[in-house]
Amino acid sequence: MDDDLEDGNVGPYQDKTRTFPSMRSKSYTPLIFQILMRINARVLFLLLLICFGAVFYVGASTSPIIVFVFSICIISFLFSIYLTKWVLAKDEGPPEMAQIADAIRDGAEGFFRTQYGTISKMALLLSLLILGIYLFRNTTPQQESSGLGRSTSAYITVASFLLGALCSGVAGYVGMWVSVRANVRVSSAARRSAREALQVAVRAGGLSAIVVVGMAVVGVAILYSTFYVLLDVDSPGSMKVTDLPLLLVGYGFGASFVALFAQLGGGIYTKAADVGADLVGKVEQGIPEDDPRNPAVIADLVGDNVGDCAARGADLFESIAAEIISAMILGGTMAQQCKIEDPSGFILFPLVVHSFDLVISSVGILSIRSQRESAAKVPVEDPMAILQKGYSITIFLAIITFGLSTRWLLYTEKAPSAWLNFALCGLVGIITAYAFVWITKYYTDYKHEPVRNLALSSSTGHGTNIIAGVSLGLESTALPVLVISASIISAFWLGRTSGLVDESGNPTGGLFGTAVATMGMLSTAAYVLTMDMFGPIADNAGGIVEMSQQPESVREITDLLDAVGNTTKATTKGFAIGSAALASFLLFSAYMDEVASFAHTPFNQVDIAIPEVFVGGLLGSMLIFLFSAWACAAVGRTAQEVVNEVRRQFIERPGIMDYKEKPDYGRCVAIVASASLREMIKPGALAIITPIVVGFLFKLLGHFTGQPLLGAKVVASLLMFATVSGILMALFLNTSGGAWDNAKKYIETGVLGGKGSDCHKAAITGDTVGDPFKDTAGPSLHVLIKLLATITLVMAPIFL
Amino acid sequence: MDDDLEDGNVGPYQDKTRTFPSMRSKSYTPLIFQILMRINARVLFLLLLICFGAVFYVGASTSPIIVFVFSICIISFLFSIYLTKWVLAKDEGPPEMAQIADAIRDGAEGFFRTQYGTISKMALLLSLLILGIYLFRNTTPQQESSGLGRSTSAYITVASFLLGALCSGVAGYVGMWVSVRANVRVSSAARRSAREALQVAVRAGGLSAIVVVGMAVVGVAILYSTFYVLLDVDSPGSMKVTDLPLLLVGYGFGASFVALFAQLGGGIYTKAADVGADLVGKVEQGIPEDDPRNPAVIADLVGDNVGDCAARGADLFESIAAEIISAMILGGTMAQQCKIEDPSGFILFPLVVHSFDLVISSVGILSIRSQRESAAKVPVEDPMAILQKGYSITIFLAIITFGLSTRWLLYTEKAPSAWLNFALCGLVGIITAYAFVWITKYYTDYKHEPVRNLALSSSTGHGTNIIAGVSLGLESTALPVLVISASIISAFWLGRTSGLVDESGNPTGGLFGTAVATMGMLSTAAYVLTMDMFGPIADNAGGIVEMSQQPESVREITDLLDAVGNTTKATTKGFAIGSAALASFLLFSAYMDEVASFAHTPFNQVDIAIPEVFVGGLLGSMLIFLFSAWACAAVGRTAQEVVNEVRRQFIERPGIMDYKEKPDYGRCVAIVASASLREMIKPGALAIITPIVVGFLFKLLGHFTGQPLLGAKVVASLLMFATVSGILMALFLNTSGGAWDNAKKYIETGVLGGKGSDCHKAAITGDTVGDPFKDTAGPSLHVLIKLLATITLVMAPIFL
Repeated sequence: MDDDLEDGNVGPYQDKTRTFPSMRSKSYTPLIFQILMRINARVLFLLLLICFGAVFYVGASTSPIIVFVFSICIISFLFSIYLTKWVLAKDEGPPEMAQIADAIRDGAEGFFRTQYGTISKMALLLSLLILGIYLFRNTTPQQESSGLGRSTSAYITVASFLLGALCSGVAGYVGMWVSVRANVRVSSAARRSAREALQVAVRAGGLSAIVVVGMAVVGVAILYSTFYVLLDVDSPGSMKVTDLPLLLVGYGFGASFVALFAQLGGGIYTKAADVGADLVGKVEQGIPEDDPRNPAVIADLVGDNVGDCAARGADLFESIAAEIISAMILGGTMAQQCKIEDPSGFILFPLVVHSFDLVISSVGILSIRSQRESAAKVPVEDPMAILQKGYSITIFLAIITFGLSTRWLLYTEKAPSAWLNFALCGLVGIITAYAFVWITKYYTDYKHEPVRNLALSSSTGHGTNIIAGVSLGLESTALPVLVISASIISAFWLGRTSGLVDESGNPTGGLFGTAVATMGMLSTAAYVLTMDMFGPIADNAGGIVEMSQQPESVREITDLLDAVGNTTKATTKGFAIGSAALASFLLFSAYMDEVASFAHTPFNQVDIAIPEVFVGGLLGSMLIFLFSAWACAAVGRTAQEVVNEVRRQFIERPGIMDYKEKPDYGRCVAIVASASLREMIKPGALAIITPIVVGFLFKLLGHFTGQPLLGAKVVASLLMFATVSGILMALFLNTSGGAWDNAKKYIETGVLGGKGSDCHKAAITGDTVGDPFKDTAGPSLHVLIKLLATITLVMAPIFL
Repeated sequence: MDDDLEDGNVGPYQDKTRTFPSMRSKSYTPLIFQILMRINARVLFLLLLICFGAVFYVGASTSPIIVFVFSICIISFLFSIYLTKWVLAKDEGPPEMAQIADAIRDGAEGFFRTQYGTISKMALLLSLLILGIYLFRNTTPQQESSGLGRSTSAYITVASFLLGALCSGVAGYVGMWVSVRANVRVSSAARRSAREALQVAVRAGGLSAIVVVGMAVVGVAILYSTFYVLLDVDSPGSMKVTDLPLLLVGYGFGASFVALFAQLGGGIYTKAADVGADLVGKVEQGIPEDDPRNPAVIADLVGDNVGDCAARGADLFESIAAEIISAMILGGTMAQQCKIEDPSGFILFPLVVHSFDLVISSVGILSIRSQRESAAKVPVEDPMAILQKGYSITIFLAIITFGLSTRWLLYTEKAPSAWLNFALCGLVGIITAYAFVWITKYYTDYKHEPVRNLALSSSTGHGTNIIAGVSLGLESTALPVLVISASIISAFWLGRTSGLVDESGNPTGGLFGTAVATMGMLSTAAYVLTMDMFGPIADNAGGIVEMSQQPESVREITDLLDAVGNTTKATTKGFAIGSAALASFLLFSAYMDEVASFAHTPFNQVDIAIPEVFVGGLLGSMLIFLFSAWACAAVGRTAQEVVNEVRRQFIERPGIMDYKEKPDYGRCVAIVASASLREMIKPGALAIITPIVVGFLFKLLGHFTGQPLLGAKVVASLLMFATVSGILMALFLNTSGGAWDNAKKYIETGVLGGKGSDCHKAAITGDTVGDPFKDTAGPSLHVLIKLLATITLVMAPIFL
């Protein structure tokens, strides 16, 4: 394929050495797969069996709940193997399709390898830093005697950090691995029927989703049971099981660390290529999107895979991991306060919810089937309606299984009706998820007023389009905030009135109520992730169809799927930010628990009337603004490089426009890849370093001015203000970006002058601006919010 | 003039009834002036003398400091009368200039009248609401006996609210009155020499600035001394003087209430006209800015006066008033805690600082003089350098007078070196002001890297220009936040270590230190306001020169002044937001004092770990986003109306482009005026209603769930998060707007293709987007921050 593509490389500027090396390597397989593949199949099977046995043995000596969780996860992995086989059994279409798909796969895998190489080096460095911090921190005699001395807790934290980072990387890899194989199969299926193409895309998305969610669950469960056994938990003199979840925070931090860089690098890659390709291709030369004459088109298609699929996989992996762990911490704290005899139900509740999630989402995915007869003869059904039907089934099942889980795990004789209150909390979460999806749809779907007004404002020019889009995005923050506020307060009060009280009779279930609501919101995560992954696969399939110049009818089918994918992508972003918002309060509480546990003093107030604490808040909000600035600027800068390169190719190879010369796709891929690797460092480092530096400086200031715990308080305020600003900023960026995109699509349906009109040009400007908003800065903010929470949890010893 | 302009109104769509009525009324004089003018001059003089006598008598029986303040203010008012005479004595130039100026004046005065009619009705309604709230609130026997019973405090609050609103309105009127008269005189002077034009513009700006600052000071001083005498303060059984400043909050609320609507209405007016005029004129038709063929050009010029001059006058009036009052409250609280014998020095310190401000700024203004010989023969000096020289003189004097004031008023035998610490706090404030001006200049002046990069990003299209501008604006929030954080912490610690302690030996001066730093920052406010007012006057003068088709050499002079005005406008916005940021912490503390005093319980913690309080913060940040959204959307919508109208006129009157037909200017003025009056209501009402509703709802929630003071706590958190988000958002909006404007100007100097190139077109798009950012939403946010602080102060009884 490369050779074929490079036939066109005859211009005087062709410089092979500057082409991205990985574009050459067609058969890249990760080292671990290479090793595994060399082992005899029977030996492998035996090894696997032994592994399973060991895991089950450890799980069984921890709690029967863990065994349940393991069993479900293994069934789900088997299901995902079935899905893989099913998807891979589909044909790759004619050779011209397969060639393009090969080029995309090579570009994506090459970038992934280089990117994760950089990330893993940074992760190793950071793990050394963590080791150092934990080895030199103060411990108390009690901690030493309970087996949690300096070195043990250091190794535990570093090990969970590295495991979290590894799993997050694997989650990203799986996302990409699936999408670069599914895209061409969807294109090929689109030649036969819309329904089949939809089914392939959904099953491929579902496969990633199940692996990602399953890995998050199984990773936490393995760590939990290993620590349980290793540390001899709950035996006299050792640590209590209710303190165990605090040891898992390293896992969440590792996951969000990798996810942040994956999202930043991938987000910059995909949008720089997209913006660059559009600015010259669509706006200047007037050729359609994904046209083979555009030299940046392969880079753009690679971007969908590394930006949307790989990064989203890592992102959702860390979301679920972080939220599971914080809910486990809160469950443990509450169980301890209420002196519940068997606290494991409260602690392991999140794992069970997500195990059910795997089951019900699989049912939802399977509910989307091919029709019996050839679909070409029946009228095309709206793919959105099909996906929605699957979602409704999943939601319905979620309500039932959630109720069952609360009755099973959260029933305690101390408060016989508490489980009912918590079930209602879960319902609050599910309703919140629904509301978020609905609100996002209202603001980003062109069936509704806001996007139509935005399209209208394009008719008066580029400027009014941007003003209208910015105001739409800013306005769209209001309803979600109201919904989240209502959920936090109602879930808190449902929890508080659950009847669970501490020794002095004070109600304690409030925070856990919020945690259960978050779990409720996430109880259909695998299905939502499926819909999300579906988007970029469909988008990519459309690109392959366009590039391989298939007939119009095939393009129509992929266009339809692409449009649906845009909507599902936008709504799942709403879902992600909603769960982050709901979880932010948990993560914050977990941080305060952690500080209290480290410092051995109560730490349950963050008083913003203290100047330093107020300053911490200012710095936290500022961090969000600066991070968004750098993320957007990175895309802008990289896109400019692409624009210049594409312009250069068009000038130097005038034959491109008449299909007489082939553009140098590889050059664009190489430029985007190296630029996005370079550009992801600055915002990423900012996010990691700021909380550490602020906490440490204010710790020193507090030390010299006699204010105990000042560092921890300032960091708490930084975390809180950053979370609030981050939620609002992410909502703003995601929604305005989605609305601009769909306003453009609305005009392309023929209204207000249709394609090619001045109005359409103004709308394209809006879409271009929205690209880094919705696919780079916005999603990176989701990760940032959780990264801040986990980094403060792990780094707490520095601030004390 | 109107008749002349309307000669062109011959098209079939000319519909006189739809023209804005006030365009007709040429000789509008406010009612109060009409009455005053009918009174015999001697009687008037006598009345004035009696008034002065009464004021002085009251002042003298309060404190000698008040007499000092009154004297300085009267001298300053006399000085401003001198400046008025000096400016009005300048000629209005040839008849074509005067005609245009008349049209601008009519438009501005007509809009002002309608706008303030609406605002005063709303203010009256709100005062009735306040009266009701205060009449029905709970009071304690102590309050009743100290003369501060229900009805007294109700009348006092309403009276100060109305006085504040009135003064704010007058401040706005003065700003506009001066600018609509000075603009044409600057144009005329520009025909003679650049230096003379500069001098006229500076003196006109100085005149407004001195009246605005003087009125703020004298208003507070009169209220303070009146209440002092009326309530028999400091006699046994009455209230203490240290509680007196709390009664003044109504004044600040009234001022910010009017300022908010003035800024919103004016800001929407000016930018809708500007954006509308540019989009069709510059972008579509390719005619220059302020070209007489553009039907929206008069509306645009009217906008400068009502948006920049009137609104900025009201804005700075309320800034100074609110900051004086909050510093007085903190001074009183601290003096009480330290049991200082004569607390009046601490309370009245802000008034004295601003009295000195009037004196030293007058010196700064006078330092800008005409050269002896005709300047046409000497090379043109850089106006920025002249203004900077004046600023340096003012700063130098400010440092001296600030030191003197601290020694005079803040010396106490309890802590003999405290005044020195406070003088250092003042220095911190002055340095902060300098740093803010420098940072804003760095990010918005095209001599520096950021704007040049922004210009460069325009070369790759509209999209990259917007992305780069947004990231520049977001990034520009970082340095100011770091500076403000450093100032808050250092001023707080200087105050805390001043040696002032309460009865139990705890240091108490921290917050007052921050207050003194704010005063230091504002100690050159009148000069800064002068530079700010200079901008729109120069801009308007340029418009008149362009419209009256003066020779190129005259246009060059006004262009030069306009460019300088753009920079000073941007830097003073930086100054304004810096002082608001520094003051926000005071206002917040004043609110907590107020709640504690109303509720008779200590209230010194706002714990964001409580879910409801966290939700308050979410709502506060959301308020900022929603408010900005509505402010920008209002401009976008109104601009679209202008665009459609201008396009219609160009189509229906094809002779306009060849100067054969005159455009219907009045129609555009009418459209913009009515639209901006309609559009200002929604964001304004949001700002007023949100804190009241949130406070009241959470008060009820707290009542039912047994959480005392929940409403007050939630409002405190709302206030704090809104302040932090508001500062960041305002910095973002102001800086990105300024940078876009100057990137366009930079390209117009001939780089990157210069005027008319694609790069320039992309830069114009950025400028258009920046217009509502920097002149509508951004400045409205300054006001909003202080309005929230004062509204929560005044409405506190509802939340308790």
